[in-house]
Amino acid sequence: MSNAPAKPQTAITPTRQDEFPEWYQQVIKAADMAENSEVRGCMVIKPWGYGIWECMQRQLDKMFKDTGHSNAYFPLLIPLSYLEKEAEHAEGFATECAVVTHHRLEVQKQPDGTSKMVPTGKLTEPFVIRPTSETIIGAAFARWIESYRDLPLLINQWANVMRWEMRPRIFLRTAEFLWQEGHTAHETREEALAETGQMLRVYETFAREHLAIPVITGEKSARERFPGAESTLCIEAMVQDRKAIQAGTSDFLGQNFAKAARIEFTGRAGVRELAWTTSWGVSTRLIGTLIMAHSDDDGLVLPPRVATQQIVILPVTPKEDSRQAVLDACDALARELRALTFGGEALRVQVDRRDLPGGTRNWEWVKKGVPLRIEIGPRDLEKGSIACSRRDKGLKEKDFIPSAEFVGKVVGLLEEIQAGLLERATVFRDANMIRITDKAAFEAFFTPKNPNQPEIHGGFAVVDWAGSAEDEDALQKQLGVTIRCLPFGEEWKVPGTCFHTGQPSTQRVIFAKAY
Amino acid sequence: MSNAPAKPQTAITPTRQDEFPEWYQQVIKAADMAENSEVRGCMVIKPWGYGIWECMQRQLDKMFKDTGHSNAYFPLLIPLSYLEKEAEHAEGFATECAVVTHHRLEVQKQPDGTSKMVPTGKLTEPFVIRPTSETIIGAAFARWIESYRDLPLLINQWANVMRWEMRPRIFLRTAEFLWQEGHTAHETREEALAETGQMLRVYETFAREHLAIPVITGEKSARERFPGAESTLCIEAMVQDRKAIQAGTSDFLGQNFAKAARIEFTGRAGVRELAWTTSWGVSTRLIGTLIMAHSDDDGLVLPPRVATQQIVILPVTPKEDSRQAVLDACDALARELRALTFGGEALRVQVDRRDLPGGTRNWEWVKKGVPLRIEIGPRDLEKGSIACSRRDKGLKEKDFIPSAEFVGKVVGLLEEIQAGLLERATVFRDANMIRITDKAAFEAFFTPKNPNQPEIHGGFAVVDWAGSAEDEDALQKQLGVTIRCLPFGEEWKVPGTCFHTGQPSTQRVIFAKAY
Repeated sequence: MSNAPAKPQTAITPTRQDEFPEWYQQVIKAADMAENSEVRGCMVIKPWGYGIWECMQRQLDKMFKDTGHSNAYFPLLIPLSYLEKEAEHAEGFATECAVVTHHRLEVQKQPDGTSKMVPTGKLTEPFVIRPTSETIIGAAFARWIESYRDLPLLINQWANVMRWEMRPRIFLRTAEFLWQEGHTAHETREEALAETGQMLRVYETFAREHLAIPVITGEKSARERFPGAESTLCIEAMVQDRKAIQAGTSDFLGQNFAKAARIEFTGRAGVRELAWTTSWGVSTRLIGTLIMAHSDDDGLVLPPRVATQQIVILPVTPKEDSRQAVLDACDALARELRALTFGGEALRVQVDRRDLPGGTRNWEWVKKGVPLRIEIGPRDLEKGSIACSRRDKGLKEKDFIPSAEFVGKVVGLLEEIQAGLLERATVFRDANMIRITDKAAFEAFFTPKNPNQPEIHGGFAVVDWAGSAEDEDALQKQLGVTIRCLPFGEEWKVPGTCFHTGQPSTQRVIFAKAY
Repeated sequence: MSNAPAKPQTAITPTRQDEFPEWYQQVIKAADMAENSEVRGCMVIKPWGYGIWECMQRQLDKMFKDTGHSNAYFPLLIPLSYLEKEAEHAEGFATECAVVTHHRLEVQKQPDGTSKMVPTGKLTEPFVIRPTSETIIGAAFARWIESYRDLPLLINQWANVMRWEMRPRIFLRTAEFLWQEGHTAHETREEALAETGQMLRVYETFAREHLAIPVITGEKSARERFPGAESTLCIEAMVQDRKAIQAGTSDFLGQNFAKAARIEFTGRAGVRELAWTTSWGVSTRLIGTLIMAHSDDDGLVLPPRVATQQIVILPVTPKEDSRQAVLDACDALARELRALTFGGEALRVQVDRRDLPGGTRNWEWVKKGVPLRIEIGPRDLEKGSIACSRRDKGLKEKDFIPSAEFVGKVVGLLEEIQAGLLERATVFRDANMIRITDKAAFEAFFTPKNPNQPEIHGGFAVVDWAGSAEDEDALQKQLGVTIRCLPFGEEWKVPGTCFHTGQPSTQRVIFAKAY
């Protein structure tokens, strides 16, 4: 077995430059994260991918609980009559609903001896599989809330949802996906607005500190709002092909859903009032965002805080007589490392004892994006040292350091990697967020010069805007771009001249192509 | 506000003795754990109930990972063609499958201005919502496994499943429920059998140590097997009306599902072989089992290890001038307690600052089954003591002890409560597990003498058995009893005479009524 990395013949093909969407699929495949299933648009999330989701879930869950929310669980199936109550909401989801119409199957024996199953037991009222749960949770809230003393009601649900996607893309847009959906009810408009803002900040913090993704926070234009919401706040990430990904949303629902579901309470003055509600969610789409934000032409790159494993230890055992000593040393190091914490959690460390050629094995972990790879062989054992490779550095860089010293500095190393990924993504994002003031430059910005060899083009266009929803439609049709958000912050609320209409404007917005 | 518990006018009505099934519903309601939804057979799990599930999930998940399993996620929808592959399995679930036949809705405006939604976009092949995932996970395993080096494959999934129940009962039998399903593939029959046994032992340990429920482990009779399995192992609990609950199963699937899904691998001899598979699961049914096993006529009783909150601190603030000091002392105590661990987890402590009459508030936590209730008032503060009430003791028992002493002994107290509940349940189970040797005694055992005032009757009947599946059918029709399991252990494998057929027998079995 060789100690050197195998020649990277298995680097991701194509590269990011050559064909970004296909590179993305290949990174997922090479890291063994997920795959498409035979059920149209539905993916199988494999252990390496699911491990990332478990980190996200555990860490977000803690943030939700720290802000006073409790988890609960509501039915998967929603009666059509519930959907019909909020017209805008219903229309927003009608075209992508999986509908349950029967509740049993009849086995029909075929002449050839096989069995065929036929739906039977037709339901009087069909159900849809939840595309989101405002309507069914609203019905529960209406039962639970009697007086202002029952407010605020702060609930979160971890669940699967289904939206029948016509153009699925693994993790980013799948027919079934996993998510969390927060649903809250409040006494006043102000409190509900404060909750909407608070949860957006939770998402922004999580994206920045855990995923190492610098997101822009802002409000969606009316056209991009959640169906039935009064306003939709969002976090928008830029990934390496300079497109945008809406990574999370927080909706102020006003009294729309309270009206539809009759979420009423007796107020402090003894009068019946309608509650003010919010909803907010992030999903397995965050995994796709993570991949597109950080990975490179050697495969996945994981920020340590959400890495399924943060450190892999690779025993190098060329000789039978030192084999056991090496394995023991690896296990001992793993135990020492697991006793340390990073980001409030015990280090996640795996010892890979598989009998594979060292290069092959090493290369596998490169593609899986493990932040730190540690090799220990007989000579390292003699010297009491280890060889450490960082996934965020060049493949050939390797540090030989005393084992005890490594244990003392490993948490700092993980912090450095985590911060480095955020820094790199921030520099990239800022370099590709361009102030544009006229139509021609805007068109040029979003038009690839040569589709076969795309140069730097596109990104986030920062423009003064006073256009209408119809103007947005037109720009989407012409260039495939949408307003990603009206960013928060004083620096964005500046007077100017709309690049598109020439009208006076009071806000700068971000246009981009998006997933 | 009074320091004394309110007169228990709100104790559960009816009592366990009077009407056990209705008592069960009322305990759930009084503890605010869950409720039926408007979706037939589907429940809403409210925060107090879901918190118990979170404990179970976290603790079981650790046990699964410690035995080498990884989590993954598979599609909710199963193509009918998958189900058709394993005939016995298909027939076992056909009558309870929710079937998806359409993938969109059309909004039809009604003359009265409202909207009606109608299913459209008919699917060429319908899907069922998974009642269990052997078939879809089998298809994935067939893709993933190439050689014996890929085995064993040890996967678990946390998911919702759906079985259209005609007689739903909250937590115990609902159309949708939450569960985990382990699915593993092995090189040899022996390894698969060993896995089946190992996971049953994990369940037994979890039931005993975490839920404080002494379960009987054994094998199901052919008639009660999982559809498509070669053998089904189970843990059977006895609850307080002396009925049985199947609390978890572990199935040895032989090569049945491997054959259906073509899970093949190249073996050590270079020949293609069929894998041996297992599946095992527990569900939110465990919550129902827990309630029926431990709760009393004052409401829920929770074993500390799976209690949503283990300790509730109730500030008693009769005077405005000492109010803040009391609240501060409560918060300080909560912080001290949360720094302690019990069963490897930080203590779960809640301070209930609500301005409610002390009795009302105290009574609420009794009904919610919190193991320890702590009161702190101005006089306690002066003395540096607290008042501690145990849920497993009489309502009026209260210990006044110095606060520091309490912190020092609280973990031991929780251990004592946990062990006490197990002891109580074991004594009850053993007292109601009766050796029966003849038909008349068997009939008498399972026949209530007076339905309006039921005396001790029924329970687990331990009998010598050599009957057939038809004999089991007959007994079920006559007395509503089934063989719960053929228990493991030498003491059960004794020669005898079948109480029912008079034939020589080699095994004792347990008959009981069951949920």
